[in-house]
Amino acid sequence: MSPPYARVAVLGLGLVGGSLARLLQARGVDVVGQDVDPATVLAARAAGLAATGAVDEAVDGADLVVLAVPLRAMRATALQVARTIGPDATLTDVGSVKAPVRQVVEEAGLGARYLGAHPMAGTEHSGFAASSAALLDAAPWAVTVARSDATQPGATEPGTTEPGTGAAAVDEQRLARLLSLLTGTLGGTVAVLTDDVHDESAALISHVPHVLATQLLNMVAGAPVRGAALRLAAGSFRDGTRVARTDPARTEAMVTQNAAWVAPVLRKVVRDLEALVAGLETNAPVHGFFHAADELRGSGSEGRPAAQVPLRAGWSAVLAERCAAGAVVTAVTRDAVVLAG
Amino acid sequence: MSPPYARVAVLGLGLVGGSLARLLQARGVDVVGQDVDPATVLAARAAGLAATGAVDEAVDGADLVVLAVPLRAMRATALQVARTIGPDATLTDVGSVKAPVRQVVEEAGLGARYLGAHPMAGTEHSGFAASSAALLDAAPWAVTVARSDATQPGATEPGTTEPGTGAAAVDEQRLARLLSLLTGTLGGTVAVLTDDVHDESAALISHVPHVLATQLLNMVAGAPVRGAALRLAAGSFRDGTRVARTDPARTEAMVTQNAAWVAPVLRKVVRDLEALVAGLETNAPVHGFFHAADELRGSGSEGRPAAQVPLRAGWSAVLAERCAAGAVVTAVTRDAVVLAG
Repeated sequence: MSPPYARVAVLGLGLVGGSLARLLQARGVDVVGQDVDPATVLAARAAGLAATGAVDEAVDGADLVVLAVPLRAMRATALQVARTIGPDATLTDVGSVKAPVRQVVEEAGLGARYLGAHPMAGTEHSGFAASSAALLDAAPWAVTVARSDATQPGATEPGTTEPGTGAAAVDEQRLARLLSLLTGTLGGTVAVLTDDVHDESAALISHVPHVLATQLLNMVAGAPVRGAALRLAAGSFRDGTRVARTDPARTEAMVTQNAAWVAPVLRKVVRDLEALVAGLETNAPVHGFFHAADELRGSGSEGRPAAQVPLRAGWSAVLAERCAAGAVVTAVTRDAVVLAG
Repeated sequence: MSPPYARVAVLGLGLVGGSLARLLQARGVDVVGQDVDPATVLAARAAGLAATGAVDEAVDGADLVVLAVPLRAMRATALQVARTIGPDATLTDVGSVKAPVRQVVEEAGLGARYLGAHPMAGTEHSGFAASSAALLDAAPWAVTVARSDATQPGATEPGTTEPGTGAAAVDEQRLARLLSLLTGTLGGTVAVLTDDVHDESAALISHVPHVLATQLLNMVAGAPVRGAALRLAAGSFRDGTRVARTDPARTEAMVTQNAAWVAPVLRKVVRDLEALVAGLETNAPVHGFFHAADELRGSGSEGRPAAQVPLRAGWSAVLAERCAAGAVVTAVTRDAVVLAG
């Protein structure tokens, strides 16, 4: 099967961008990388990649452009891309939050050709030197679409997002082509989600866990009994603080970039913990707190058999609904998307 | 070196009691086990241990008695022990919280001969069938002593405990003998702490981490986007919820048994998270939250060179102060206690 894109431009050759460029090249895709750092460009060339320092040069002639720069550089890069990108080319990215990227892209006038993407892979290292084709080989991805009736994150209770409906503005041909690249050429799986389902999920399974791990570490760091506590620390503390131990600046950036979803989730954490404390202080029953997730325990995934979604107009909304419930795309055929889970 | 006790009775032959009896026997100590469950007694005998169903029979003639029953059975067992225990025998236990056990033991009239103990080892399994000498071989222990001026846990802010002072009521000869058993015969290390330093530390490094892991799992279990969230779940979520996944009833028991310390620590967690949320909602700086524990990061232990504490009257208070700061006893000689860390 020939790759669904004739040429891919990867803007930013850090850990994820570098790994993506290496993997695309390994799979026979014509790829050109770009980075503002001349040393990184040289390192990429030494690794056998076509690389340049100029965004215009990389974007020219590409039919897929990937923003792999840090979130703070997205705006400036998107504006540069808008000057050169071809009329039919698709724009995507690899950022860990999706709604803020879509906003930047729309402000650059590129909203109609944009699909968000987020590979669920990483290491604690960063930079091109840490990149490898293996990092994203057969990786799980999220691909995100806009929804016409987008909720305002933070305006309502967390957990009131009605996942999956909407997504009326999706260019389904663009989406099918990107899914084909990620599942076929790169061998991955893809959860197709609306931006808000992705960003709320990321708050729940990544950003808030990082916050609570940080808080656990802060509590011990500030305690007079800290010496004894660290000496007695067992598996629960090591597990619970592991992600807080490496790079607090990166954690801070992740959390503040998704503050719109992290804040309401944390508000609910605070309310639940207050109820628990009140119970503990008055010897009231606290059984419900400890058993609220019993349904999740022990069970593996709630797998459904594989299914096909025909590529009839509106299929992307079906996909977003199924993926919000846990399904993933494993392949794209001529006339259908194959789902698992 | 001959064992410091002629005979040890281990009451309760579950995971920890069974493992302790096996290890004592392997080290040449005369040990008799007891359990209320006849099948466990038979299993212990089949494993080559002396075992009985009767507390009186096990305690008679022992110069060290170890309560290894669940916390809810401590009161009844202590009252039985009080009827038979020899005039010079020492009483200890292996419970995960110390102040509640001391209270039970004092109510049974055994306070003067009691020293708390808590081995920092375990598995997710339970029962004699899961026990092994290896579990407690060279294990880290906490041994706890009373303090005459004990603070009221929960009455003040967490973190205001002044560790280490007091402990005036300690029978230092008993303490030296128990330390000799745990470090010499069993090859372990021992943090000598007051009950309150132990229980506050346990809240910080075990019970509150279990609560926050449970809360993370609860948040996802209750979210409409739960399917997508679980599909996207990465290392931070798996690490952060691992200890909440196994046995919620055990977690509930641990937390409620130490509610006096868990509640004030959780109150502080709630306050800190509220401040963070307020910052996130107003775009105020949240740098301080993410960097409060920077001093702990990267650094290993704050090791001090090995030191000796001479066995002069009052040495136990010196020990409790040094151990509250992170030191542990590694050996007991004729005239000194050897500290590391």
